[in-house]
Formats: sequence, C-alpha cells, structure tokens
Amino acid sequence: MSVTHPAGFTAAGVAAGLKSTGAQDLALVVNTGPSSASASVFTSNRCLANPVIWSKEVVKDGSVRAVVLNSGGANCYTGAEGFGTTHAVAEQVAKGVGVGAGDVVVCSTGLIGLTNPRQQLLDGVDAAVAALSGDGGDDAAHAIMTTDSHAKQVVVHGDTWSIGGMAKGAGMLAPALATMLVVLTTDADVDAAVLDRALRHATRLTFDRLDSDGCQSTNDTVTVMASGASGVSPDEAEFTDALTRACRDLALQLLADAEGADHEIAITTRGAATESDALEVGRSVARSNLFKAAVFGQDANWGRVLASVGTTAAAFDPADLDVAINDVWVCRESGPAESRDLVDLKPRQVSVTIDLKVGEAQATIWTNDLTHAYVHENSAYSS
Amino acid sequence: MSVTHPAGFTAAGVAAGLKSTGAQDLALVVNTGPSSASASVFTSNRCLANPVIWSKEVVKDGSVRAVVLNSGGANCYTGAEGFGTTHAVAEQVAKGVGVGAGDVVVCSTGLIGLTNPRQQLLDGVDAAVAALSGDGGDDAAHAIMTTDSHAKQVVVHGDTWSIGGMAKGAGMLAPALATMLVVLTTDADVDAAVLDRALRHATRLTFDRLDSDGCQSTNDTVTVMASGASGVSPDEAEFTDALTRACRDLALQLLADAEGADHEIAITTRGAATESDALEVGRSVARSNLFKAAVFGQDANWGRVLASVGTTAAAFDPADLDVAINDVWVCRESGPAESRDLVDLKPRQVSVTIDLKVGEAQATIWTNDLTHAYVHENSAYSS
Repeated sequence: MSVTHPAGFTAAGVAAGLKSTGAQDLALVVNTGPSSASASVFTSNRCLANPVIWSKEVVKDGSVRAVVLNSGGANCYTGAEGFGTTHAVAEQVAKGVGVGAGDVVVCSTGLIGLTNPRQQLLDGVDAAVAALSGDGGDDAAHAIMTTDSHAKQVVVHGDTWSIGGMAKGAGMLAPALATMLVVLTTDADVDAAVLDRALRHATRLTFDRLDSDGCQSTNDTVTVMASGASGVSPDEAEFTDALTRACRDLALQLLADAEGADHEIAITTRGAATESDALEVGRSVARSNLFKAAVFGQDANWGRVLASVGTTAAAFDPADLDVAINDVWVCRESGPAESRDLVDLKPRQVSVTIDLKVGEAQATIWTNDLTHAYVHENSAYSS
Repeated sequence: MSVTHPAGFTAAGVAAGLKSTGAQDLALVVNTGPSSASASVFTSNRCLANPVIWSKEVVKDGSVRAVVLNSGGANCYTGAEGFGTTHAVAEQVAKGVGVGAGDVVVCSTGLIGLTNPRQQLLDGVDAAVAALSGDGGDDAAHAIMTTDSHAKQVVVHGDTWSIGGMAKGAGMLAPALATMLVVLTTDADVDAAVLDRALRHATRLTFDRLDSDGCQSTNDTVTVMASGASGVSPDEAEFTDALTRACRDLALQLLADAEGADHEIAITTRGAATESDALEVGRSVARSNLFKAAVFGQDANWGRVLASVGTTAAAFDPADLDVAINDVWVCRESGPAESRDLVDLKPRQVSVTIDLKVGEAQATIWTNDLTHAYVHENSAYSS
C-alpha cells in the first residue's frame, strides 16, 4: 500500500517493456488533492541525469501533482535526445491525469549512458494512467526496483493522518544522496515551506548518512507530496519527526539490501567537537575498502579504523582514540586494549564506536562491508 | 644491487624471525660517507606509526647515516611500549655502525595494532650489522617485502654518479603517500636542502599520484641519502630529474604489484583549469569502486567516470565532457559517442582520458581495478 495509504493518492505500476525480464518498470503516483504542496531533494552530483535536470525546475514552485518513475534505464548522460524523452514523458503524464507538465516530477533509474526507448515509455505512461488506483502503491513500489531484491515501503501514522513512502536503491549508495528514488506521500495538510524544511531535516539525518560504497549517484530524487485530504494540519515538529521516521525506515531498508553486502555497519563517532567532525570521521571509515574487506573477513581490524580516522581534519589527539567493535573496546588510547578475539563478527549487524574524546557531539554513518558479491555484481551488472 | 649500486653505501637483509615463514624481514642501509646529507617525506596520515614519529625527528637536521627497516609488523598504534621498541632499535643500529641514534631512520611495515617483539628486532639488528656489505642491496630489498610478490629496485645513472632505490608496497596505496617504504641512495654530492627540494618534487609527481585503493597508510616513509662518494655535484635540475625517474620507476613497480589487481589504470585528466583540478578529478575516478569493479569486469562503463567527475569541485561544464577509454572516445559532450564495444579491456594496461575542455592543465593518477582477489587478500590478510 505504502504511497497510497494516505488519503488523496492513486498509484500504478506497469510493465512498459524497458526491463528485458518483462517485469514492472514504470510507476506513477498521483496526488488527487485538494492540496498539491510538495518538496524535493536531489543528488548533489554536478553531472545530473536528464530527469533530475527536468524535475529540479518542476519543484521550484512547491507544487507537484504527479511523480512518474521508470526503472530499466537512468536516462543519464544521454544529451538532448534524453532530455526530450524526459520532457515527453512529463507531457504524457500531464495529459493523462489532467495536470500541467510543470507539476510532473520525472525519475529514472538503471544503467547510465544509454538512451531510453521513448515510445515504450509513452505507451507505459498511458497504461499506468489507466491502471491508477487507490490500491496501486504496492505495484508502484515494485516497478521502481532495479537490483533491489524486494520492494521497500513504509507507513508512519500520525493522529488522524499518515505518511506513506516507497524507495528503490541497492548500490551506488552515498550522499548526498544515496542512489535512490524515494516518493513520500501524506494526507496531512502541510504547506510547501513546511514540507521543504521537514524533508531537508529528515534526509540530512537519514539518507545523507547512508554511505554504502562511497559512490555518488546521478539520479537521486526524494519527493514528498501532501494531499491535505485528511483536513488535519499537524504541528510542524510532530510532522517532521514522523517524516524523519519514515525516511530512516526506508534508509535502513536500502542499507539492508545493498548489493552483495554481508554486513550492515553502523559507525558511531562520539566525543567529537562538532557534528560535522563526527560525520567526517564516520564517513572516512565507511569509505575504507580495507576496513570494509576486513569486516567481510570477520576480522575486527581496529587499526584500519584508526588509519582512516587519521586522514580526517577532525579535532582529536592521535594518541588518545578509543575504538569499540560490537561494544568490545579493542582500542584504548590508540593502542591495543580488549582482545579482538572477543569480537563476534558473524552476525549481519556490526557496530563501530569511535570516541574522539574531545567534545560532546556524535553522529552515525551506515555502511556495508566489501564482499566478493559486491565486486561480482558491479563488474557484471551492465554485461 | 639497487641501494648499494652508488658508491658509499653498504646494506644487508637478514631473517630476524618476525615473519613466521622464516624469510628475510630486517634490512639495514648504511651511508658510509663522506657526506651524510639526507631528506625524507612521510605519510600525511595524522595517526602515525611509532617509527614515523621517531624518524620525523631524526631527519630534521638533514643528516642520516642509516635506515633500518623491518617487515612482519608495523609497530603502529602500539603506544609507549612500541615507541620504546623503535628507540631501542635505533640505538642498537647506532651502536653497531658507530653513529648517533639521532642519525638512524627506522621504518616498519606489516600488520598494525600489534606489538613487535623487541628482542628479536635487536638480535636482528646485530645480525644485519654483521652482514653489511657493498653487495647487500638485493638482500635488503627482499627483507622489506610484505605482500609484495617480488622485490622492487631501481638504478638511475648520471654522468659519473648514480641513484639506487628500493621500495616495498602492494596495498593501502594512496597518497600522501602510498603505503610503502622507499630508500634511495646516491653517491652524488648533494646537500640536504637540494635533496629535500628534489625529493619533494619527485614524490609529488610519482608516489603521490598512485592511488591504488584510496586507503592512506600510517607508516609511509621515503628517505634519500647522499654519500657524496663520487665527488661529483650534479646540477640541481639534472639531479632532480634523475631522482624523479627513479621514483616513477619504483611507483610503477608498486602499481604493477598491487594486491589482487588485474589491471593498471592510468587516469589522465586534461583540459583542466589547473593541475589541482586535474588531480582532484583523476583521484575521484580512482576512488570509485563502481568504476574499478567495471574495469575488472572488462566493461568500458564511462557513465561511472562521469558520475565520479560530477562529485568534484573542478571547473568544467557538466554537459560538455569527453571521455576516452584506451583511446576510444566513448563519451563526447557528456553523451554516448563511439561504441563501448570497441574498447578492449583484456590487456592489463588501461588508459582513461578525461577532457574537461576548459583549460590547459593536465595530470595523471594511477590506480588499479577492484577485484575478487583484492577483497580476498584484504579480508584474509590478518587471519
């Protein structure tokens, strides 16, 4: 149900023929109102996919009526022809659901550098429009999957309103943002300015802290639409909290399904002078192939943690760092402490705690291990 | 021969018992003068190994008489006990060869976070002192190997003088510097200030542009010692050029022997506004696991190149980038151009050329692909 759980939304997922498997590959989510308030965040990559170039313009006025998403091709680095395809898809949706093309966000995902078949997309849009229903959320969530092993959906309840969401993403997960498409819906009556603040707060604490493989995507889009159909205007803090919970739930679903991963690693840096220091330190460890390969090998190699921390500009004393892996303090004062043999790295969940011992700030970055399956999936993906 | 090729040097490599295989694991290189001029560069990691903490002090006066190096343990993050071991090793060398401990550079390599057995090291030093000879360079080069598959040595000839060098390093190769220990010797009569300028020039263009896996080491040391035994003082430019050639030769030997690599990738960024931009762009691609896995899979995935370029702050037009892989221009104006099927990625040598089309600067970064063998070697290394 997910995106169609809140009142005021219809959705559909259809097979447009982009995926050679014949699986669903085109999703449409429509806000039937009465409100069309919306907010979005996009990848910070400077080399943008065509749908992102288009959608960044669409969202500027705070009003979005529909999001159309396709898997099976990212329409990225495909030039004017590719941009024309994005534009044509938006026009086709606009015509089909009776809105302006300037209220249609377009998202694409799949291989980059390949042109999407325009006519298949347009026919797919027509099929999706015909299939729109208040039960279509599940189909939509399936249609946006690429290497995802399952659909990712969430529902968070307010008093008399709710938030629904769907996400796709299983690799190229790094901020900002992770490689992912996310559509969030709510029947709360929230204006575009509040939506924007709430979404930026939520993504900063969730998707932006997911750093599966350090590779920043070209197509990332997170769009929230508010239909106002519940007639209820929640308190901004309450809404922001609910939206953050929805985003965190989806982010952890992405982490759990990351390509080829054997472990989900939560890296918490505490005792930092600033939150920014804590994030920099966590990210440096999340991007250490050596540390990530060690976790795959179930080796509590804390030395590789310190070697990563040492590459940052964060405030700390290099001779006074503490590191715990799965709560075993294997390193105290930058030297060996409890035996690394006490650390059991067989379970999928791994926690790394780094204490910089200079302040009160802390932050958590989530990543995965580096496995044979990751190498295989990413060396074979496009062949 | 390598480090003992230039006149005025003796060396030895012995088995001190640090390596469980019984292989040579302790090397000593001694400058017998008449000059003791020297210069060094070290890792820029802030979490330093004990030998680096020691050696940074030793080299400050521009005079070094001996370099002692051990494999089988990095003596990194081992606290006061570890620093005491480094100090004791320097004193033992000093006593053995009749110099001051303040003229002895100490280098260690191997696992981090483990204490080195001090007495074995001291006994090894005695054995090495006894074995010192003008033919000992080859033994020394073998004694510093860790996961290296072969010893790395170089000789560069000037008119009536020469430069010799040895290096170890096969992983954790990222600036600054790569994970490596390098000892360079020359019988040219060059003072410490010239040596320092020449070495910084050489490493900036060579070791600093090697970015095998983005992981910055804790023990990197490059030391050059000049004996002056030839009695010849070459022109500074001539000497700098020769030293740069020696360093480039060793750097490419390190690249060719990187852990588990199937390909050596030279990433040249041209048309950049500045050399710094070119380096940032090259490094971003060198650190993309997705691109490196694609090269392993023999997939000319130029989209992953652009996705990396887009994460940088370099000056360029995101809609006007050209990319060649093995000289096939698979991307023009940020879109598909020549067919990627024309790119043959079976050979070990791969070139990637990125044209930013905004300026005249260019630079090359060297990296490796991301392979199953890399994951295996780095997940199993310490077990």
